[in-house]
Amino acid sequence: MTRSITVELGERSYPILIGSGLLQQIGGLCREVGYPQRSPLLVVSDSEVAPLYLAAVEASLTAAGYTVVSHVFPSGEASKSLTVYEEVMTTAIQGGLDRRSAVLALGGGVVGDLAGFVAATYMRGIGFVQIPTTILAHDSSVGGKVAVNHPLAKNMVGAFYQPSLVLYDLDTLQSLPPRQVASGLAEVVKHGLILDREFAYWCLEHAAELLALQPEALGYALERGCAIKAAVVAGDEREHGQRAILNLGHTIGHAIEAVGGYGAFLHGEAIAIGMAGSALLAARLGRDQAIYTDTVAMLTALGLPVRLPVEYTEEALMEAMMHDKKFKEGQMTFIVPDSIGAVSIVDDIRQEDVRGVIAQLQKEGSPW
Amino acid sequence: MTRSITVELGERSYPILIGSGLLQQIGGLCREVGYPQRSPLLVVSDSEVAPLYLAAVEASLTAAGYTVVSHVFPSGEASKSLTVYEEVMTTAIQGGLDRRSAVLALGGGVVGDLAGFVAATYMRGIGFVQIPTTILAHDSSVGGKVAVNHPLAKNMVGAFYQPSLVLYDLDTLQSLPPRQVASGLAEVVKHGLILDREFAYWCLEHAAELLALQPEALGYALERGCAIKAAVVAGDEREHGQRAILNLGHTIGHAIEAVGGYGAFLHGEAIAIGMAGSALLAARLGRDQAIYTDTVAMLTALGLPVRLPVEYTEEALMEAMMHDKKFKEGQMTFIVPDSIGAVSIVDDIRQEDVRGVIAQLQKEGSPW
Repeated sequence: MTRSITVELGERSYPILIGSGLLQQIGGLCREVGYPQRSPLLVVSDSEVAPLYLAAVEASLTAAGYTVVSHVFPSGEASKSLTVYEEVMTTAIQGGLDRRSAVLALGGGVVGDLAGFVAATYMRGIGFVQIPTTILAHDSSVGGKVAVNHPLAKNMVGAFYQPSLVLYDLDTLQSLPPRQVASGLAEVVKHGLILDREFAYWCLEHAAELLALQPEALGYALERGCAIKAAVVAGDEREHGQRAILNLGHTIGHAIEAVGGYGAFLHGEAIAIGMAGSALLAARLGRDQAIYTDTVAMLTALGLPVRLPVEYTEEALMEAMMHDKKFKEGQMTFIVPDSIGAVSIVDDIRQEDVRGVIAQLQKEGSPW
Repeated sequence: MTRSITVELGERSYPILIGSGLLQQIGGLCREVGYPQRSPLLVVSDSEVAPLYLAAVEASLTAAGYTVVSHVFPSGEASKSLTVYEEVMTTAIQGGLDRRSAVLALGGGVVGDLAGFVAATYMRGIGFVQIPTTILAHDSSVGGKVAVNHPLAKNMVGAFYQPSLVLYDLDTLQSLPPRQVASGLAEVVKHGLILDREFAYWCLEHAAELLALQPEALGYALERGCAIKAAVVAGDEREHGQRAILNLGHTIGHAIEAVGGYGAFLHGEAIAIGMAGSALLAARLGRDQAIYTDTVAMLTALGLPVRLPVEYTEEALMEAMMHDKKFKEGQMTFIVPDSIGAVSIVDDIRQEDVRGVIAQLQKEGSPW
């Protein structure tokens, strides 16, 4: 079964397809989207994903009558740089991409962000298709945020640019290592925690099936996760306000990533600790203690960490947070749960409370 | 007197102010636009313009309560690179620009294009103000095309991004060298040639005043030029169709720039020869021979070249044109005058006719 969701953004609306065997249909789908066969297509992928799936994508596109150019870069966050960006641009120019061409991002979040920024800026914007191959990318492939990193700060150089199509082939998820599965599920359950109580508890009940990549459960979870994100994005495409609720757990999470070096914790692991921290913050602000208990139950059921190793010191984390771009004009803003499935944007959080939360997160032994 | 035009683009509409003494008002105008004083502003300029006007801009912004960061790069097309782009990004980050900050482009087209691409992509897009200091920039500052060059092709990396305000201080034009004045007037008269017969002949009659930078004539010419461009852009913001008429003379013009090396002819000079070529093409397609005669009269009155030096060979120019991004899917498209003040987009131009036009352009001695 193929599930379909539409991200409603007026003339920039686009469908997300979720199902099995979709990679083999990409050529026909590109024709349905309206990309002309005379304009070359560029597939961007990384050194981990390309050996597994690039040939299938190229074959489907070629069979549909397209000329295909590919660019494969070393996997990892270090590739999300202006240097690799320029190299992909070079491939696009040498491959003869024109204004009616499209860029297809085959891979996880790094591939999607980088290829999306190429699509957004090659000849001032050409077609863009996302083919996420990680669970985590269900998040980054909805919402149109594309970017590369600057040596001084993550995601500092980018754009809002919507794809014409997101193609989620569940078959590509079967090869994911367990830690990456759990990391991806952190963003899935986050969407329940911010807006859908029933779905959050559904994730708790079906954690084992999700970790086992059981297609029915996984398809449903991705559909709900994408749908919730799509609804938030549709209401606030350029992140002027409400879209910030998607950042639940991300302020502390980004600080953990910055202090530990990107890669020590996976992104989903870092934001899981951040979401546990947000629930502790909620308790400090007088909200129900059960928010923390249930949040931790959900995260641990999904194999995610909820505590901080002691080497992540309070000072280092606070300093990293003060540099976070989400603190506009020097105030500390956090997304705070009101209950499981509802959050508020609170912009007058006291530094003492944040320090207190960090101390609490560090109290007990292992992060898992 | 300050003239004001509005570029009508729905929620992205913005005003163009043209007059004397405007640089000294930039601080107050930024507050009117709504930029908060707590968010730093970045002024981008080049080594030719900064010594003349940067201090005045900084003083006005500081007096209005803003923190100001400046980035000055070497003047010239070579600076419109991803390398300089990254350097400006570094200045922006180190200067603490946040999502409510703005980039002010103080200079000609290179400054506007580069600073605009920074504004379009810093934190996925922040505020943008254009302060053009050349006549040529009246063209590039309207329409939202921003870009840098790739080593393999000009303007290949960019975006459509509209400023919040364009501020045209006529005082800054007084220091322009005569060749740059004429080059800028090429785009001014182009706007008459494509859409406003009366204005085209007005330019012919007032050529001497324009070349002498007489403020009343210059203010009117810039107002008409901007207004015509704004009307075309408003109808086709992302260049899907009709906006292409703005490229009158640019196909041959770009080829001349590519073959001669950027800088041999100034941009306006190259497109002047291109516009003479377009008029010759019109004659080959059976349109009135007077189009050519009058076009040449206007261009020469404005001190612009209308012939090709012989070292620009037919083969080199044809090859450069075949690489021009305006030839989508291999067909040759030209903007062809139907009369003075009216043009058509003709997409089935035969190569023989283009070759014939080049030969005709080369027939006589000096380009001027």
